[in-house]
Amino acid sequence: MLKYSEMDGAFKALAEPTRRSILERLGAGPATVSSLAEPFDMTIAAVIQHLQVLEGCGLIRTEKLGRVRTCQLEPAGFDPLASWIEARRMQVERNLDRLGRVLNEKYPSRQAKRKK
Amino acid sequence: MLKYSEMDGAFKALAEPTRRSILERLGAGPATVSSLAEPFDMTIAAVIQHLQVLEGCGLIRTEKLGRVRTCQLEPAGFDPLASWIEARRMQVERNLDRLGRVLNEKYPSRQAKRKK
Repeated sequence: MLKYSEMDGAFKALAEPTRRSILERLGAGPATVSSLAEPFDMTIAAVIQHLQVLEGCGLIRTEKLGRVRTCQLEPAGFDPLASWIEARRMQVERNLDRLGRVLNEKYPSRQAKRKK
Repeated sequence: MLKYSEMDGAFKALAEPTRRSILERLGAGPATVSSLAEPFDMTIAAVIQHLQVLEGCGLIRTEKLGRVRTCQLEPAGFDPLASWIEARRMQVERNLDRLGRVLNEKYPSRQAKRKK
């Protein structure tokens, strides 16, 4: 689980379209570094750098078996990001509910009038 | 609604803790620029820059009435980010389900043995 300050890195990692594409590809299942590099017009070294960023902020994990490194998504790494975004939406909803209640208390005839 | 390429800016905007704090504060309700600047040890100009970033990528909207600019969350701006993250988690779940089915087909006795 990421701490608040560690969300910086994860959100920054997602701000790069190549890294999002890599994560989408890994959503289909674990993949080797070289198969991940294939669709991109970039060096293996550049892809490895992206993978290190993604692993560093906990969005993927990698495992080396012999000479082959395999990568997979780390779903738990996405949880704090999803929770943070969800919390903002819930705040807005709660505010609208509260506003609705205040308006109904202040102008109790509003609803009655509408029902006519 | 943000396009795929526009998600870059929104994720990048969230990668900065001051901007996340501003969004958390705005979750409590609309606020003026000067009241948003108060809790931070930074100039109004710096806060305005953060607000411009947030408005530019559709996470907040602002309105100027006379000399006072008021900011509020734009919940729809968060939707594509939440959807993108949710899609990754769903992919992983689907893969685990598929793996489970394959294992059960390949080793049908597994479950039977476990039940003993």
